[in-house]
Order: sequence, then C-alpha cells, then structure tokens
Amino acid sequence: MNDDIKKQFEEYKKLVEKKLDEFIPIQYPEKIWESMRYSVLAGGKRLRPILTLETCKVLSGSYEKAIPTACAIEMLHSQSLIHDDLPCMDNDDYRRGKLTNHKVFGESTAVLAGDALLSFAPQIIIQKTKCGENEVKYETLLKVLEEFTVAAGAEKLIAGQVVDIDSEGKQISKETLKFIHENKTGALFKLSVRAGAILAETDEEKLNAVTKYAEKIGLAFQIMDDILDVTSTLEELGKTPGKDEKEGKVTYISFYGLEESKKQVSSLCTEACDILEKHGIKSDILKAVANSIKERVN
Amino acid sequence: MNDDIKKQFEEYKKLVEKKLDEFIPIQYPEKIWESMRYSVLAGGKRLRPILTLETCKVLSGSYEKAIPTACAIEMLHSQSLIHDDLPCMDNDDYRRGKLTNHKVFGESTAVLAGDALLSFAPQIIIQKTKCGENEVKYETLLKVLEEFTVAAGAEKLIAGQVVDIDSEGKQISKETLKFIHENKTGALFKLSVRAGAILAETDEEKLNAVTKYAEKIGLAFQIMDDILDVTSTLEELGKTPGKDEKEGKVTYISFYGLEESKKQVSSLCTEACDILEKHGIKSDILKAVANSIKERVN
Repeated sequence: MNDDIKKQFEEYKKLVEKKLDEFIPIQYPEKIWESMRYSVLAGGKRLRPILTLETCKVLSGSYEKAIPTACAIEMLHSQSLIHDDLPCMDNDDYRRGKLTNHKVFGESTAVLAGDALLSFAPQIIIQKTKCGENEVKYETLLKVLEEFTVAAGAEKLIAGQVVDIDSEGKQISKETLKFIHENKTGALFKLSVRAGAILAETDEEKLNAVTKYAEKIGLAFQIMDDILDVTSTLEELGKTPGKDEKEGKVTYISFYGLEESKKQVSSLCTEACDILEKHGIKSDILKAVANSIKERVN
Repeated sequence: MNDDIKKQFEEYKKLVEKKLDEFIPIQYPEKIWESMRYSVLAGGKRLRPILTLETCKVLSGSYEKAIPTACAIEMLHSQSLIHDDLPCMDNDDYRRGKLTNHKVFGESTAVLAGDALLSFAPQIIIQKTKCGENEVKYETLLKVLEEFTVAAGAEKLIAGQVVDIDSEGKQISKETLKFIHENKTGALFKLSVRAGAILAETDEEKLNAVTKYAEKIGLAFQIMDDILDVTSTLEELGKTPGKDEKEGKVTYISFYGLEESKKQVSSLCTEACDILEKHGIKSDILKAVANSIKERVN
C-alpha cells in the first residue's frame, strides 16, 4: 500500500470510529451501553465499513449517505464476535488483545449487548440516513435493510455459525467447509459492498461485479484466518491461536496444506482486483483491501 | 368474553399461527430453523399480534397489511423468552408447559435461534408487506421498522431486562420497578398497537390513545405476572412458579400486597377501555384483551 492510499484508508477508519462513537451514546442503564461500546469501539481493521463507504463512493461519487449503514455493518460484525466468544460457543477469553465482552461485563450482559446491537444496527440505518427527495429513496433504504437482515440471519451469517459449531471434531467435506466460509465470513463482506452499491443506485452489472469481488476477498480472508491460527502468536493475533487444531476443526489447511492455502489467498486477491478492472470500477482502496488480506497479521 | 368475541379472538389466533408456520420454513441447516419454530410455534395467547391486527383493523377497516408485522412482533416476543430462559439469565427449564429452547436444542443453538429471530422478524416485515402505490407506503413501513427496532433494543425491551437482572436480590424503589415493567413488558404492548396504528395511517390523536391503552394493559399484564407467580401451580402457569420470592425479587406484591395489586389490575383494565371509548375507538376485541388480563391464569 503506498502512502497516499494508506492515508485514505486511515481517514475512512477514523471517520468510522468517530461515527460509531457518536452513534452509541452512554445512557441509562449505563451497563448495557458500555458493554456495546466496549466491543464496537475495541479497534479492529474496520474493513467492512470501509468497503461500504468506498463502494458507494466509487459508484456514485460520494460516501456520506453510506455512513450509517457502514457503521451498522460494523455493529453487526461486533455482535457476532460477542456471541461467538460466549462460554457456550467458542469460549474465548481474548479478542483484539483485550478481554472478551462476557469476561468484563458478565455473560448475561454480553448476551443482551449482542441482542441490543442486532436491533440497534438497523435502527441507526433508519434514523441516521437522510431520506426523501434528492436524498436516499425510502425504497432504496428498505432494500438495504432487507440485505442487512438477510445477511445477519439464519439464511446467511447464523447458518454459517450453526454448521461451524456442528462440525467441530467431525470430518467434514470441502463443500461443508465452503458453506461455513461463505456464510460465516463471506456474507458480511458481500453485504458490505452490496449495501454501498445499492445506496449508490448502481446498475445490475456493477452490483454483480462488486458482489463477486466480495466473494473472492471474503474467502481469502477466511483462508488467511485459518493460516494465522497456525502461524501466529497471541500477541500478533489478539486472540488465542492454535484453537482450530486443539478443537479438531477441519480448515483449509487440513485440505490443502499451508503453502497451497497461501497461494490460494494470493490468487483470490488478484482475481478480486481483476473483476473490478474488467467492469471499469476504478478504486485504489478496494484494491488495497484485497491486497491487505494477503499481508494480514491479525 | 361472549361467544361472538371469543370466536373472533380464536380466528385471529389461528390466522397468526398459520402465518407464523408459513413464514418460518425448515431449511438447511435444519437445526436452527427447528429451534426457531419450536419456540415461536409453542402456543401462547398471541395477545401482541392480535393487538396489532385489531388496532390496524379498527383504525383502517382491514388487518391484512398488518399480518407480517403482527407475526414479527410475536417472533420478537419469542426471542426475548428464549434468551431470558438461558442458564446465564433466568435459567428456566419450562416455558408454556414445554422444555425451554436450550434444554431441547442446547445453549449455543438457543443463543443463535434468538439472534436469528431478531433479524428474521424485521426481514419478514420487509419481505411480506405489500408496498407501493395503493399499498403500504415505503415511508410508512420504515416508520414501523423504526418502532420495531427501538422497542426491541437497549432503549426499551433490553433496558428493562438489564435493570431487572441487576435488581435481583436488591431493595429497589417503586420507580425502578416501574421502569422494569414499562420497558420489559410495556414496550412490546406499545409496539403492538402503535405498529398497527401506523400501518392504518391513523392520526396523532388516535395513535396517542392506543398508546395509552397499551401502557395500561401492559402494566396490568405485568402486575398479573407477579400475582400469578405467587398464586399459581406449575401446571396452570406452564413455567416454574414462586421464582420471584426464591430469587428475592421485589415485585408489585412486595409494595402493595396481593389484594391491592389485584385491584390495580382491575382499575388499569377499566381505564384502558375508557381511553378507547373517549377517543371513539370501538373495538370489542381490544376491550376483550384488556378484560382477559384480569382473568389470566397463565
């Protein structure tokens, strides 16, 4: 990433963090809002909201109308991590180098903070997006909300989580692994670009192109997750490494080995950039997101 | 309730159950959909969706356009019960005379089924409500979704749950108890009538009237809950009775005693009916709902 792109990237990230901070006020009962803020404002790469903002910008010239949706998608991502880390799920103590939500606020608050974020995210889309003539059309916002609720639910994200949990310690097929990856990780990447594209009122061709781009980088991101679980330390990763093997989880590496998996990540990122190129979508940031996945350390 | 009203009531209930069954298909991965269906289709009085349908009907002449929203509100209600019953929350084994969701499907699936319902409910509102000219306006549906997400979130329902959990074993004030009741129970009753009224495109006066009606019956319903916890058996209640005292929970009865609490339920139900009368809202069903609360056995 050259310095100019790095700067743009940082600006998006700062904007997202400023807006997330603004959108989630502390109010009574403080504990639940603090718990929501703890996880949403715990850092992270903010890749998903950056995808939403940049996709909207490259397809319509501005990203402002996508800010609430971008933040909502990051809230949904945080929600899935809070519940994923619960004792009855992955039972993780660390996330992004900090104690997990339930370790700080207790299990019942962590469950409720996740629940609250699931409703608060679409609430922010509705309340903070400017609608009406010359602004986002009501019908368009409903489309965004439909994409959002479908991606968050039992047809996508939660389908991936359920099959993932059910697969622990089992010898699963490549197809099942693909299903888990496409839904548990891929669905949110797809939502991120599609929501941006829908807000940009783009055409079918470009919507399909960014969707394919997101499928590629979503898969690359997940394979990289499997790789990092093997090759990283707790400090680098910010969460406990080596969990997949310990839990007898089948990963990309079980099927393809470490080197071949790395090669696949590289190919997928190149293919993602080629798709954009082919459809005349010129965005250094979208390319940089793809390339950053190859260089992930956490 | 006379036979005619009882029949109308039953018809609404059957419609809601038929539609809930239709709206939640079994699909891959089956376990999560079965878990969602288990709780949503576990029976219950269906008071909230009936309130939505009847409020829409009495204010606009028909209830059809409110069917998806009515069902979504019942899904939200089920969701709150699934998570409420979790070991880290109320730790209940029985609900509506059946084993609780996590007892049948395991804790992780119960958490995810609740999460899934939180997104599936607004998804159903968006996908199943007919929108456009001569149908529900897009802007109106966004208002309904806003009411829905606010009621479900940390400003209402979850605020009530958090304060409720935090109050266990503590000597709380009447104001705190009121806050819990208004948010934990009242918010969904209010949402039920307000969503129906918004879909009916009613005026501010009538919207306020049904809101006040819902506040009264919501409070009456919750006081009755406190009463039944003291006076009922497991068979009658369908869930474990005597829990409040065992957990050192302050309830209406701690402040007012059993007899005075019963009187308050009666007054609130009468006041609720009077509000409707005063604003020319003539609905035998809404009156019957209010009166049914006095006669609740579960």
